[in-house]
Amino acid sequence: MSSILASLEVDLGERSYPIHIGQGLLDEGGLFRPFVDSGQVMIVSNEVVAPLYLERLERALEGLRVASVVLPDGEEFKNLETLNLVFDALLENRFDRGCTLVALGGGVVGDMTGFAAATYQRGVDFIQVPTTLLSQVDSSVGGKTGVNHPLGKNMIGAFHQPKAVIIDIDTLSTLPDRELSAGLAEVIKYGLIEDEAFFGWLEGKMAALRRREPAALAHAIERSCADKAAVVAEDEREAGKRALLNLGHTFGHAIETGMGYGEWLHGEAVGAGMCMAARLSRRLGWMSPEEVARVERLVDAAGLPTRPPALGADRFEALMAVDKKVQGGQLRLVLLRGIGKAVVTADFSRRALRELLQEEVGGEAGS
Amino acid sequence: MSSILASLEVDLGERSYPIHIGQGLLDEGGLFRPFVDSGQVMIVSNEVVAPLYLERLERALEGLRVASVVLPDGEEFKNLETLNLVFDALLENRFDRGCTLVALGGGVVGDMTGFAAATYQRGVDFIQVPTTLLSQVDSSVGGKTGVNHPLGKNMIGAFHQPKAVIIDIDTLSTLPDRELSAGLAEVIKYGLIEDEAFFGWLEGKMAALRRREPAALAHAIERSCADKAAVVAEDEREAGKRALLNLGHTFGHAIETGMGYGEWLHGEAVGAGMCMAARLSRRLGWMSPEEVARVERLVDAAGLPTRPPALGADRFEALMAVDKKVQGGQLRLVLLRGIGKAVVTADFSRRALRELLQEEVGGEAGS
Repeated sequence: MSSILASLEVDLGERSYPIHIGQGLLDEGGLFRPFVDSGQVMIVSNEVVAPLYLERLERALEGLRVASVVLPDGEEFKNLETLNLVFDALLENRFDRGCTLVALGGGVVGDMTGFAAATYQRGVDFIQVPTTLLSQVDSSVGGKTGVNHPLGKNMIGAFHQPKAVIIDIDTLSTLPDRELSAGLAEVIKYGLIEDEAFFGWLEGKMAALRRREPAALAHAIERSCADKAAVVAEDEREAGKRALLNLGHTFGHAIETGMGYGEWLHGEAVGAGMCMAARLSRRLGWMSPEEVARVERLVDAAGLPTRPPALGADRFEALMAVDKKVQGGQLRLVLLRGIGKAVVTADFSRRALRELLQEEVGGEAGS
Repeated sequence: MSSILASLEVDLGERSYPIHIGQGLLDEGGLFRPFVDSGQVMIVSNEVVAPLYLERLERALEGLRVASVVLPDGEEFKNLETLNLVFDALLENRFDRGCTLVALGGGVVGDMTGFAAATYQRGVDFIQVPTTLLSQVDSSVGGKTGVNHPLGKNMIGAFHQPKAVIIDIDTLSTLPDRELSAGLAEVIKYGLIEDEAFFGWLEGKMAALRRREPAALAHAIERSCADKAAVVAEDEREAGKRALLNLGHTFGHAIETGMGYGEWLHGEAVGAGMCMAARLSRRLGWMSPEEVARVERLVDAAGLPTRPPALGADRFEALMAVDKKVQGGQLRLVLLRGIGKAVVTADFSRRALRELLQEEVGGEAGS
C-alpha cells in the first residue's frame, strides 16, 4: 500500500519540479516514469542504503532499462575519484544524453548524483530519492550538487535542479535516532528563519516526530521544503536572502571543524549553533530571554545539544572567520530579531560576540 | 605595439560576451581587467604554450593577484585527474568565488579551464585566450567545456560561457604549419555551411592565410566566429541547427577513429570529411561537379587531404554509425545543397553512401 501524504511544486520557471512525500513511494514506478525520457535509468546508491531499498526500486521501474552503481558510504568518499565510478557505469552501459539518474540515499549520494547528472554529456536529468531526514529537508530544494576537495568541502560542483523529488518516509524507519535528530535541526531552522507558526507547531509535535509518526513527519518535511523553496526561489544563485539558510551554520562550522569532522554530526553542530545565535541576539537586545528559552527547549527536545564544546574563545573565533560567509574581511552572521525573524548582518557588536565566546567556549586554550 | 583588428559580440542575452582579435593583445592588461571582479586571476596553460607566453601575460596583469598552473600537453591529459591540478592550484591559493580563470592555450586547455570554471565553487568567471587557429575559430564560441573519459571523448562537461575571448594572432607565428592547416579546415567549414561569400573570399585569400598575413587571419577568424555565433545563438543547447557545425565530422570521426587517434589531426579528417560530404551530395544530385571541384580545390589549397584513407567500406560505415549523430538508429548526416547551403538530414539514399564508400575507402578489408 502506498499513499502520497503531501506534494508541493518548487517554482523555478521552466526548471520547476514536484516534491512528493508519502509512504511506500519506492514502489510507485508511475511517479518516476514521466521523468525518464529515453527509458535509461541509472540508480546511484551506497553500500548502506542499497541492500535496504535498491531491489524494491528496481522492481518498481521494471520495463525500463535500469542499471545501478553502489558507492562506498561516507563523506570521505565524496570526491572526484568516487564520482568517476558513476561515469564508468554510465559509459559501460552506453547511456546517452536522454538518460535519467536516480539518487537513492542521503545527502552525499544526492550531491554526487546531482553533480554527475550536471556534467554527464554536459547535463542529463536526475531524480532525488532522499532516504535521510536531513537530505529530505535540505538537499530536496536548492539545486546544489558537488563533491569535496582535500582542501575544502563542496569546492567542486554545479547548480543543477532535479526533475522530481520523491520522498518515501518509510525509509526513515531504518534511520538511527541520532541521525533523525540531526535532521530535525534543519527542520527547526526553517521555523526560526521566517515561519513562527511552524516553530509553534514543532513545539507541539516534537515527541511525535521523534516517534516517527508518518503524518507529523510528512507535514514537517513538506513545510521545511516549502520554506526553503520560498527562500531559494527569491535567490537561486545565493547572493542575498539565501544566506539566511546558514542560520546556526557559522557557529556550527566552527564546532565541526574544531572537533574534527565526524565527531559532531552536522545537525548537532547546527543545533548548538542556532542556540548560540539566539543567545548572541539576546545579548544584542534583539530577542527576549523567553524566546531564547523556547529555542533552547525545542533544540533540546529534538535530542540535540544546545551548548558548544569548550574549544577556546580565540580558536573558536578564528574558526568562524574561515567560514565562507566572511565578505571583504567582515564577519557576517545570521542572527535573530525574534523567532521567525532571521537577518543576515555584519552590523553587530564584535565585543558582544567576544563575551559570548568567552562565556561559552572560553574555558580552555588561551592561545 | 598592440592593436585590435576586429571585435564582435556573441549575443546570448545576459551571458553575451566580446571577442577581440588583434596583435599584441597578450600585453593589453586593460582588455582583461573588466572581467576580474575580485582581483584574483588563475592562468591555466600547458608545457608548450607557457614557456612562450605565460610571463608576458602575467606582466600585463601586474597589480592583480595572479597565479598560474601549467598542465601537461596533449589530449591524453584531458581528464579528471589533470583537471584536479587546476582545483589544487585554486584552493592552495585560497581563491574564492570571485576569482577569474584565464585559459592560455589551445582547445584542450580551453575545454579544461572552462570546465574548471564551470565547477569551481559551483561556477566562476573565465576568459579564453586561444593560441591555436582551431581553438580561435572553434572553442571561442559555443560554451562547450569538459574532459574525456577512457570510454569516450568529452563525456564529462558543462555548458559555460566565457566572459571574454581575447585572440592575439601573433601567437599563430609559433604554430606548426600542419596545425595551421588543421585550423583552416574549420574556417572553410563555416563558409560551406551558410556563408558562400566567405567561401569565395577564402578562395582568394588562402595563400595569404597560409603565409599568416595578419589582416587576412583577423578577418577569417572574425567571420568564422560570427558565423558560428549565429548558429549557436539560435540553438545554444544543441538540438537542431547546431548540428550543422558537424559538417564533415561524421566522416572525419570515422577517419580519426579508424586510423587511431592522433594519426590524422582532427582538422585533416574534417577536411577530407567535407570533401566526402560534397561528393556524396553530388551523387544525390544536390550539387554540381563544379561546386564539388571548388570544395576540393580550397581544401587542398589549405594543405589538407581531400580523400579518406582506405579503411574498408564496411568498417568505415560501422565507424560512422558509432558517432553520436545517430538518432533512433537513423544515421543523420550534414550534406550540401550547394556551397553555403548545408542541411542536416537522414533523408538520403543509403545506397549512394554505400557506393561512395566502396569507391573511396573500399580497397581494403572486406570484413
